[in-house]
Amino acid sequence: MRSNGEQSSHHHQNHFQSTVSVQKLRRFNTLILAFRVSTFCLSLASSIFMLTTSSSNSSSIRWFDYQAFRFVLASNAIVALYSFFEMGVSVWEISSGATLLPEFLQVWFDFGHDQVFAYLLLSANSAGTELARTLKTTETCTSTNSFCVQSDISIALGFAGFLFLGFSSLLSGFRVVCFIFNGSRFHL
Amino acid sequence: MRSNGEQSSHHHQNHFQSTVSVQKLRRFNTLILAFRVSTFCLSLASSIFMLTTSSSNSSSIRWFDYQAFRFVLASNAIVALYSFFEMGVSVWEISSGATLLPEFLQVWFDFGHDQVFAYLLLSANSAGTELARTLKTTETCTSTNSFCVQSDISIALGFAGFLFLGFSSLLSGFRVVCFIFNGSRFHL
Repeated sequence: MRSNGEQSSHHHQNHFQSTVSVQKLRRFNTLILAFRVSTFCLSLASSIFMLTTSSSNSSSIRWFDYQAFRFVLASNAIVALYSFFEMGVSVWEISSGATLLPEFLQVWFDFGHDQVFAYLLLSANSAGTELARTLKTTETCTSTNSFCVQSDISIALGFAGFLFLGFSSLLSGFRVVCFIFNGSRFHL
Repeated sequence: MRSNGEQSSHHHQNHFQSTVSVQKLRRFNTLILAFRVSTFCLSLASSIFMLTTSSSNSSSIRWFDYQAFRFVLASNAIVALYSFFEMGVSVWEISSGATLLPEFLQVWFDFGHDQVFAYLLLSANSAGTELARTLKTTETCTSTNSFCVQSDISIALGFAGFLFLGFSSLLSGFRVVCFIFNGSRFHL
């Protein structure tokens, strides 16, 4: 049987551990929030660049004439929307300490969407790159150069967004396994 | 102080737990091996299909005239080689119970390469799809149809290989987090 002294020291240690755990979780969540904000900014910028390619010159060539560019715009817009929602979720979690959805759902939702959208964005950008490369060999790019430059910039921004989304998918994957092990997203 | 009876029952429980753990690890490794074999077969088939497109007809059009098809072939060949190596690693681990490389290195090596090669393969296949789509609108495909059909099959096989590689990257990611938590790849 334990003495009272041992019990209180044990309780104190537990309390200390959970404080460290909360601090680490907050740092972890801030890192995720930073990645979310970066992804949001980059994919929004990419969408806007792709959207405005049609209005920047008065020629007949537009982004929606090409299926791959439509794919780039659509996936960047989806990722921008999703990142905006996830930014809200992150801010909520940092400020209130609890997840917006039930914890089980939230952890799996984040990880699943991060994975799928990272693959989606990479696929769209690769297809867009190949189309942009093909266009450069045709006369489209020599006559209306600003169109090609703008779509190149849009695709480059999309790739940068993919990078940050990939990082956040690693972090949310870590949270999922924490949840599987400990029954909570705390990793200590 | 514990009695002898308690001690032996505790020891028995530990032994029982580790037996369950070894069994679960073996099932887990067999699943990884199955994914590796599938990835290997599919990416090898994809490489062979892409390689033989040039010899199947005597026209002047070849796969290496197109950068995207070279990208598809290269990444499928890389993934096939890597999967072959990983199949060996898996078989070694199942038969001997230990990892080929030191455990820390092996776990991170698997996860890192799975992630990078999955993204590589998806990117190559998306670029290849876009090129194949573009080719269909030109006269290349109407004159030498077998070329286009063979490259389509190659790309489809590549996508299937990507799917299995993505699944193995999830499993090896799980192993990494197990290693971070427990200091071993055992997840119990």
